[in-house]
Amino acid sequence: MPNPSQRSLQAHSSPIRKLAAYADQAKKDGKTIWHLNIGQPDILSPEQALQAVKAADLKLLAYSPSGGTASYREKMPRYYHKFGITIAPEDILVTNGASEAILFALLACLDAGESVLTPEPFYANYLGFAGMAGVEVKTVPTRIETGFALPSVDDFRRAITPDVRAILLCNPNNPTGTVYPEAMLRTLAEVVMERNLFLLVDEVYREFCYGDTPFFSALNLPGLEKHVVVLDSISKRFSACGARVGAILTRNHELLTAIQKYAETRLSPPTYGQIFAEATLDTPETYFETVKAEYQRRRDLLYRRLSAMPGVSCYLPDGAFYLFARFPVDDADRFCQWLLEAFSYQNQTVMLAPGSGFYGSPGLGMQEVRLAYVLNCDDLNCAMDCLERALEQYPGRTETSTLNAEPVDHSLR
Amino acid sequence: MPNPSQRSLQAHSSPIRKLAAYADQAKKDGKTIWHLNIGQPDILSPEQALQAVKAADLKLLAYSPSGGTASYREKMPRYYHKFGITIAPEDILVTNGASEAILFALLACLDAGESVLTPEPFYANYLGFAGMAGVEVKTVPTRIETGFALPSVDDFRRAITPDVRAILLCNPNNPTGTVYPEAMLRTLAEVVMERNLFLLVDEVYREFCYGDTPFFSALNLPGLEKHVVVLDSISKRFSACGARVGAILTRNHELLTAIQKYAETRLSPPTYGQIFAEATLDTPETYFETVKAEYQRRRDLLYRRLSAMPGVSCYLPDGAFYLFARFPVDDADRFCQWLLEAFSYQNQTVMLAPGSGFYGSPGLGMQEVRLAYVLNCDDLNCAMDCLERALEQYPGRTETSTLNAEPVDHSLR
Repeated sequence: MPNPSQRSLQAHSSPIRKLAAYADQAKKDGKTIWHLNIGQPDILSPEQALQAVKAADLKLLAYSPSGGTASYREKMPRYYHKFGITIAPEDILVTNGASEAILFALLACLDAGESVLTPEPFYANYLGFAGMAGVEVKTVPTRIETGFALPSVDDFRRAITPDVRAILLCNPNNPTGTVYPEAMLRTLAEVVMERNLFLLVDEVYREFCYGDTPFFSALNLPGLEKHVVVLDSISKRFSACGARVGAILTRNHELLTAIQKYAETRLSPPTYGQIFAEATLDTPETYFETVKAEYQRRRDLLYRRLSAMPGVSCYLPDGAFYLFARFPVDDADRFCQWLLEAFSYQNQTVMLAPGSGFYGSPGLGMQEVRLAYVLNCDDLNCAMDCLERALEQYPGRTETSTLNAEPVDHSLR
Repeated sequence: MPNPSQRSLQAHSSPIRKLAAYADQAKKDGKTIWHLNIGQPDILSPEQALQAVKAADLKLLAYSPSGGTASYREKMPRYYHKFGITIAPEDILVTNGASEAILFALLACLDAGESVLTPEPFYANYLGFAGMAGVEVKTVPTRIETGFALPSVDDFRRAITPDVRAILLCNPNNPTGTVYPEAMLRTLAEVVMERNLFLLVDEVYREFCYGDTPFFSALNLPGLEKHVVVLDSISKRFSACGARVGAILTRNHELLTAIQKYAETRLSPPTYGQIFAEATLDTPETYFETVKAEYQRRRDLLYRRLSAMPGVSCYLPDGAFYLFARFPVDDADRFCQWLLEAFSYQNQTVMLAPGSGFYGSPGLGMQEVRLAYVLNCDDLNCAMDCLERALEQYPGRTETSTLNAEPVDHSLR
């Protein structure tokens, strides 16, 4: 029997989905599971976009152009303009979600064996895409003690080894919810230019900023027009994860021409998804205002509940819909599995994404978890009731966070 | 300015789409273009599948499971059963078209630097996916003189160098329309087992067999359960290229577990496409009968018209909806570009896919083109009227096929 490739056997398992089998079993056993593991919003998709798909009078479900339908691409600049971003249809290529945008960007910016540098913890699937593209993910640490703030320019400089060809950021950040301030990005831009790197920025959460730090797009960094590649998706802002429509935006047309070849190889993004995506561009501002207010209420609730749990460390995240907390447990992977296998409270339990999977450096994140606040406040309260009791009952509870050398600054709670 | 990766600059350009800019210009100039370059069927999609999408009462366009929705996967075996294939939902993973199935199979079966062996000419985008996966495409030649029949077992044996980990077939074949007989596949199976290889078979055209050779699935090769990986798509059989729904089928669960990690990395296949795909399973047999009869009429017409053109070599293809012909031209790439740039007949012209892009070996296919018969018979006749005149007028016309060493057997016409 032929064996699978070594790279596939060693491929990264998604910490977001790897406990799915335990969850399935728990559901079969009749347990209610509160899903805080996956960034699948529960907010309804914009009604007019759902209607646009129903109204589409297709007789033949044909390929679209490889880079996306002309009508969608031509309207997209209007959306970006709302964020002060001036971009042309010629700077945009439509992809199968941000997922494919990340893969294409890695393939087109890096050769096999080269490295991309990213702050950790990072969106875990970057590791999966890097594996597919045959590139390394190198990391610069960020710390819960500072709310996972962007590392200093000196930290980045030290980490840029000769094999590093690109810096990859997620802003607002998944999994930490951190929003990177304009001033920090401008300083980082100097390093990017000085070392002649690509700057890849995953901005799929740009709508979701709740604090004093306004969103600042890498596309507005002056002088970096040929360096910046923005990775985007309609999944989060329009609760449309199933559309599988994302985009790559760059003013570097030599790069975009190279990416276009990958796009042609896979023929086209999904036609229905693009009909939906085009209609999302007419979503009224009130939709976003309502959605943002709802997420902010949840964030506040989650932070308040977690902060009241003894031994839990967290901070108030400024954006996205994630919070990355430290729990008083021996091993968060074990704890998250125990939640599904062995724990229940009123026949309910919670599913979380263990933190270690969001780190590239071995041994980090062992006491950390990502919580996605994608449940309404009532359900979120039920989930927190479960979690509070689970942390009390868990056999591997530790009284303090022991695995990181430095003490947790409890003022952050 | 940072440069794109070497691999992206060297990536294969799709011969199917690379002349698109010339076609756009010709359209702007008011010319009608008969598209025989791309396998985009003009046949209408099944009505009940289009209606299923309209009827879907979605409020939230959510991710599906990474391997596809449970309801779709559970119904899929019924479809395969019609072809005498017994397969379980657990053997199936739903992908973003056959495109993603090919990429995942290459990543999971081969490590970077290893090789996949395929008869040439082959579906050109295999080269693109191989480039993305960092693997080599090695080839075994097939010849127009024998209707591009499957190479002999000895030819395969000679070509299996130690770096070859898999054989990749397309049956019925794109770009040649050749259908591989059961006996040939059984003999090849012995080599696959003897050398412990994977056998990847792209069977997206299995509905379209017109001749005496019935379709035989690699999934029915005895003893090869752990070797065979079938790559599939609903694009062609249901005229649903824009759905972006394909599948990987294999009974090798160790391999499928490895592939599942790639599927989780990219989160999910498109939700609307899967609703459509699930509904295609209820397509009445009369749909296929009508569609198949229509393609057969077109094939016969195309073959008759091409055979009557002086200097053109072709054969009667048994399957799919392609014909790979040899033209009396100096360079088919130049000829195809000239058709769009410089030629018109009654303000019409034809777009074809130049043959060289379907070969891995340099210098082959220089006089060949792929024609997709995806136009109705009237339009196909108009296209052939254009082509006939174009071949007469083309300044680079050659009286005989000069670039291949061996003489063309004209009895094939």
